[in-house]
Amino acid sequence: MLKAPDNQVAGHQARNGNLGPLIDDSGRFYKPLQGDERGSKEVAFYTSFSSNTKVPDHIARFFPKFHGTQLLEASDGSGMLPHLVLQDLTFGRVNPSIADIKIGAMTWAPQAPEDYIQKCMKKDRETTSLVFGFRLSGMQVFESKESGFWRPEGRRKIQTLSLDCMKLYLKKFVSSNTSKMSLDLKPDCAFASTVYGGSNGILSQLLELKAWFEDQTIYHFYSCSILMMFEKELALTGKNPRPEIRLVDFAHVYEGNGIIDHNFLGGLCSLIKFTSEILTTPEESYGDGLMTGDARTSHTYSENKNGRV
Amino acid sequence: MLKAPDNQVAGHQARNGNLGPLIDDSGRFYKPLQGDERGSKEVAFYTSFSSNTKVPDHIARFFPKFHGTQLLEASDGSGMLPHLVLQDLTFGRVNPSIADIKIGAMTWAPQAPEDYIQKCMKKDRETTSLVFGFRLSGMQVFESKESGFWRPEGRRKIQTLSLDCMKLYLKKFVSSNTSKMSLDLKPDCAFASTVYGGSNGILSQLLELKAWFEDQTIYHFYSCSILMMFEKELALTGKNPRPEIRLVDFAHVYEGNGIIDHNFLGGLCSLIKFTSEILTTPEESYGDGLMTGDARTSHTYSENKNGRV
Repeated sequence: MLKAPDNQVAGHQARNGNLGPLIDDSGRFYKPLQGDERGSKEVAFYTSFSSNTKVPDHIARFFPKFHGTQLLEASDGSGMLPHLVLQDLTFGRVNPSIADIKIGAMTWAPQAPEDYIQKCMKKDRETTSLVFGFRLSGMQVFESKESGFWRPEGRRKIQTLSLDCMKLYLKKFVSSNTSKMSLDLKPDCAFASTVYGGSNGILSQLLELKAWFEDQTIYHFYSCSILMMFEKELALTGKNPRPEIRLVDFAHVYEGNGIIDHNFLGGLCSLIKFTSEILTTPEESYGDGLMTGDARTSHTYSENKNGRV
Repeated sequence: MLKAPDNQVAGHQARNGNLGPLIDDSGRFYKPLQGDERGSKEVAFYTSFSSNTKVPDHIARFFPKFHGTQLLEASDGSGMLPHLVLQDLTFGRVNPSIADIKIGAMTWAPQAPEDYIQKCMKKDRETTSLVFGFRLSGMQVFESKESGFWRPEGRRKIQTLSLDCMKLYLKKFVSSNTSKMSLDLKPDCAFASTVYGGSNGILSQLLELKAWFEDQTIYHFYSCSILMMFEKELALTGKNPRPEIRLVDFAHVYEGNGIIDHNFLGGLCSLIKFTSEILTTPEESYGDGLMTGDARTSHTYSENKNGRV
C-alpha cells in the first residue's frame, strides 16, 4: 500500500489531493515525473549515473539507489503517471531530524533557456543562494515524543535567513534543548560532535564529497540538494545517531564536459565552513535570538572608511 | 625616471598618450587611481589588507606590497593624478612569461549597482568566466631572443577560448617549442614539471591559496586576477625558472562578513584542475590546433539520450 512520506521536508507533497511522491513499506520512494522536461531529465540522470563505472562506490552511496520507472496511480487521482522508483532515504529511521539544503550560488545552468535563467537568478538573488552559496529548502528537528518535530515556519523565510539565523538553525539541528525559548536563545549543540563531527559524521562526509567535486568533470549539478539526517533519540541514549548526507533532485543536471562543477563545489565549501564553525565555536550566542543583520548587505572598503586620496 | 612597464599583459596601457601605470627603476609600480569609485576602493583595500594581522605571511606574499599613494604626472599628460604605489611584480625578471587570469564565474558582487551587475553578467556569460570559473585576460610567452614573445591576438578572443584552446594556451605557456606550427600542433610541455609542478611550483602555490580561501571570510574578491609568471631562459639552462603566482586588481573587493568567497574559490579550484591535468596528461594533443568545440555548449541528459518514459 502506497502512502505519502512522513519525513518530507521540501518539495511537492502528496497530501490533500495534490501530486507528490509516495512510499511503500519495503523502502521504495516513488517520485512522479514532472510534466515538463524536468521529469525526463531526472530519469536520464539516474539512468546515466547508476550505470557510470567512473563514480566510485564511496561517492555513489551518497545518491539514492535507482530502480527504474513505473506507471502508478498518481496521488492527486489524475490517473496513471510514470514515477521514478528510488530508495526511500528515511526508511528504517525513527523520528529523523532532516535538513534539505539546495547547493550552489546559481541554481541554473548557463545553457538553460533564457526565461528560466532569469526566473532562477531572481530567486537566487532574493534568497541566500547567491551570498551563502546555498539556501535552506526545508528542515525538521525532532524535539521529543510529546512535542514532536520543530519545523521552521514559512518557506520564504527559511530561504532568506540572515547569517546569524542560518547559523542558529544549523545549531538547533544538533541541539538537545526542548524548550522553544532556550532553543532560540542558546541552542546547546549537544550533538554537534556526534552528528557533525567524528570520522563518520556529516562534516567528514561533506569533505569526501568535496574531494570528488574537486576532481570530477562528468556532471554539473544545478538546483540539487544535500539532505543531512540523523536520529536524536539514538543520540540521547548514547548510541550512534547515524548521521548521513544524501544528494537529491537531479532535474537540472548537465554534462560537465571536462570542467569541474565549481558552482556546486563553491557552495559545498561554504556549507562545510558553516558546519565546521559550529564544531569549533559552538558556544557563540545570538543575543535575543531574533533575526538581525542581513546577509545581503555588505560594504566595500571605501564606504565609511577610506575615500579617494 | 618613470616609464611604461614592459611586461604588462592586460589592462590600460600608458602608451601613445593613454593613461596607464608607470614603473621606476627601483621596483615600484605606479597605478593611476581610476576616476570613478574604483580607484578609492582599491586604495581602501590595500590599506586594509596591508595592515590586517589576520592574513598569514605565506598568503600576504601573493599580494603586491603597498607603499601608499602618491601624486604624479599622469602618463596621458592630463596633469597630476593620485597613483597607488605598489611593488613592480616583474622587477628583476628577464623576459618573464606571464598569464593574467581573472578568477570567478561572477565578476560582480551581489551588492554592486544593478547596471554594473547587468553589464558584468553579460560579459561573464559571453566569455569563459561563467562556464570555466575564470577567463584569460592576457598572456605573453617568451619564445626566444630572436622572435621575442608570443602573445595571443585579440582581447576578445582570449576571453572566449574553447575548452581545448584554453588547455592549449596553458600548455604553450610551459612549452619549449619555438616554431609556431609545432607550438600550435603539439606543445611539448617541457617546463610543466618545473613551472606548474614541484613543491614550489605554481600548482603548489595555487593550492596554498585555495586552503586560505576555504577558511577566510574577511574579503570577497570580485574581478581579481591571478598572475602566473616564470622565466623560460632560466628553465632552458636547467636553473629554477622562479615560478610565482600573484593576485592583482582589487577595485571590487568587498567585506566577507563571515562567509567564504565561494565564487573565487570555485574558479580557483577550476584553474587548479586545468593546471593539474597538464601535469598528469601533458601528451594529450589537439588535432589541427584550431579552436573547435564551444565551452558554452553542453547538453542535458535528456537530449539525444533518454526521453520521457
